[in-house]
Amino acid sequence: MPSELQPVSLKITQPRINAYAKITRDPNPIHLDAEFAATTEMRGIIAHGTLSLNLLWRALAGTFGAEACDGAEMDVRFVRPVRVDDVVTAAGHRDEADPSRYLVQVTNQAGEAVITGWARPGT
Amino acid sequence: MPSELQPVSLKITQPRINAYAKITRDPNPIHLDAEFAATTEMRGIIAHGTLSLNLLWRALAGTFGAEACDGAEMDVRFVRPVRVDDVVTAAGHRDEADPSRYLVQVTNQAGEAVITGWARPGT
Repeated sequence: MPSELQPVSLKITQPRINAYAKITRDPNPIHLDAEFAATTEMRGIIAHGTLSLNLLWRALAGTFGAEACDGAEMDVRFVRPVRVDDVVTAAGHRDEADPSRYLVQVTNQAGEAVITGWARPGT
Repeated sequence: MPSELQPVSLKITQPRINAYAKITRDPNPIHLDAEFAATTEMRGIIAHGTLSLNLLWRALAGTFGAEACDGAEMDVRFVRPVRVDDVVTAAGHRDEADPSRYLVQVTNQAGEAVITGWARPGT
């Protein structure tokens, strides 16, 4: 297995969030309505965490082929919200303590982690 | 915390997969091209695993509010591929051994698990 996953980036624009909400049937206004979202604990619109998590899926598929996602395991924590127009990047390196898996992170354009954890490709 | 997560279902149609591929910029033909996909190990089109995983996100948000997804943790395994026109349902019940988390499952219309694992809402 390679020592690094192929990194994948995506800009999380409002139109992308809107389209994601429609496809996944998730009309929660915290993702869609800036005025409402500003009144919540999150103090503004946040993207769906699974939209950013998808980049880890793509990093696995890009590195091992899409078949590796079958049987794959992910243990992830959503540590920081993703905001409109953030550019998020998924990356990972092989875990020396357990070479069957990768320590993974999705970071924003400021280099802050938004998702951390590990992922193991399927076999 | 409630003993069950609010279940969430979604029909995974080809147009939904196509739109998801476009939004997440994942043009892998295993999701989009039936002729190509038939020649692979997967023997036909599979949906992106994160499209089904999103239902667990929604089950958490539906049960605790979207804020609970901030800081949330998920440990999931993609145990079976999701096929075109499968109807998948995410559900979960509180883990008696660790009441801070839910044992979760996404199942298809045949009742087969496609994703299994656990999820812990953020605080």
